[in-house]
Amino acid sequence: MTARIWFAAPPALWPEYEGPLAEALARRGIAAEISTEAPDPAAVDYIVVANGAVTRDFAPFTGAKAMLNLWAGCEKLVGNPTITMPLARMVEPALTAGMVEYVAGHVLRHHLGMDADILGSAGPWSGRAAPPLASERRVTMVGLGALGAAAAQALVALGFPVTGWSRSPRDIAGVRCLSGRAGFAEALSGAEILVLLAPFTPETENLIDAAALARLAPGAVLINPARGQLIDDDALLAALASGQLSHATLDVFRTEPLPADHPFWAEPRITVTPHLAAATRPATASEVIAENVARAEAGAPLLHLVDLSRGY
Amino acid sequence: MTARIWFAAPPALWPEYEGPLAEALARRGIAAEISTEAPDPAAVDYIVVANGAVTRDFAPFTGAKAMLNLWAGCEKLVGNPTITMPLARMVEPALTAGMVEYVAGHVLRHHLGMDADILGSAGPWSGRAAPPLASERRVTMVGLGALGAAAAQALVALGFPVTGWSRSPRDIAGVRCLSGRAGFAEALSGAEILVLLAPFTPETENLIDAAALARLAPGAVLINPARGQLIDDDALLAALASGQLSHATLDVFRTEPLPADHPFWAEPRITVTPHLAAATRPATASEVIAENVARAEAGAPLLHLVDLSRGY
Repeated sequence: MTARIWFAAPPALWPEYEGPLAEALARRGIAAEISTEAPDPAAVDYIVVANGAVTRDFAPFTGAKAMLNLWAGCEKLVGNPTITMPLARMVEPALTAGMVEYVAGHVLRHHLGMDADILGSAGPWSGRAAPPLASERRVTMVGLGALGAAAAQALVALGFPVTGWSRSPRDIAGVRCLSGRAGFAEALSGAEILVLLAPFTPETENLIDAAALARLAPGAVLINPARGQLIDDDALLAALASGQLSHATLDVFRTEPLPADHPFWAEPRITVTPHLAAATRPATASEVIAENVARAEAGAPLLHLVDLSRGY
Repeated sequence: MTARIWFAAPPALWPEYEGPLAEALARRGIAAEISTEAPDPAAVDYIVVANGAVTRDFAPFTGAKAMLNLWAGCEKLVGNPTITMPLARMVEPALTAGMVEYVAGHVLRHHLGMDADILGSAGPWSGRAAPPLASERRVTMVGLGALGAAAAQALVALGFPVTGWSRSPRDIAGVRCLSGRAGFAEALSGAEILVLLAPFTPETENLIDAAALARLAPGAVLINPARGQLIDDDALLAALASGQLSHATLDVFRTEPLPADHPFWAEPRITVTPHLAAATRPATASEVIAENVARAEAGAPLLHLVDLSRGY
């Protein structure tokens, strides 16, 4: 039997995926026909998407066995009532590795106070003292899924005391894990560096609001490589203006690219990175897609299945 | 018996050390008299220094049982023929931790290309792609002593393939270890990020010269938190001008503070940090000093004894 796959992710991605995806399927003995043009909906077994697709109406795909997302985030899919087939999000080692590197790098950057040296703003030979050790710097990670847990563990390995928060209880070696609504306030209290790696759901929208920011240590730093909607933008700007936050490094925004007239561009205490913290890499992502096709063909449960009721 | 200790490090350090040192000695049951003023040389058992002291002539200290250095580097002491007592350098966990953080932070900074975002030089929303993964970035560590080995292992934990070079053969888990003159050329070949953590000795002066820099990958980055003398400054500037090096981040210099008219200040591809990569911390360093006093009093071998013939 031939698996009929519709590659409904942006066409610009196809050249990168064509080879690796064919090879990953062939290695599993799966005969596949992959189309990039919108096919006959009734003749599609699998739909590959990138947190969105050229259509919003998947009702005609009556025979589809699964929708397979190339990205970790799937908030543009979960609210779509026409997605009735199983939906899997992307968890793959290269995406995780890239995110861990971004988080470790920017946490160390702020911990070490590098910007003063890079910008020269400390003046020639400032003679400033060595920064405190990582063991003296409180970091809080909001979100302890595959990405948050891996980043939290990398920070622990670097010596930081890490508090982690997640919706439901987690247990991660070396991380002080808190959960639920009561745990949220405690997790934020006194944090000097706050990292967001939670999914965007109706529950997490504006999770980081004025009250949350007020709980952090004065002069704290915020790092957000998750989703822009987690932050109340006005509260963020106010906290920077008051000094409650000393800096924010943001990789994600409510509108991307971040519009040229957005106030974040004019705020020197905000570093904008252009949504590059973690990219899915075709070689490793193709393995995950092919593995899920093989599982579905064998009637086995999919990897990284999205729970539509919780939204990720 | 009372151990008579002369604290011959700069007086500015004394307030930080007075309490921790007294406590660390007391914990080991050592009765000590510590003077900060130059005492009767014949009545001194131990001399605490900071890679230098108010005198260069230690010949009158005929009864001194050891000289104990607060810093890792001891190049201002090893050539002094009047230092005939055993000389110990500082190896302590906080100094090592600080160095590891500096190296990990600046390696990640260059690996991720952060400066473009921090300086805004990439322009608004550059749309640049995600950087390669750490696993695709070749890092070479020159020097595999306590600091170099710890930093190399932290980089391995972050996913970087690390080649290490040392004078004599070393074996460090996860690190491709090379040694000797022949190994040096090989260790540098194709390195994209070169980190220096070797001691300054007659053998390592100008180790990083034009020939060494030419072996690196085009556009490589150099990070030096060791000693300024390891680098041929003119060769460094030439390699930056030609593009063979894309950036150098330097914490140490032949003259410190780096003079205001030094060409490094005018080179935008050099980041100067004011010798803060790794500071000895009084609490943990006092333990090492006290432990060595206890060992000498008991006739046991000193920790971190300097081999004057090799210079570290």
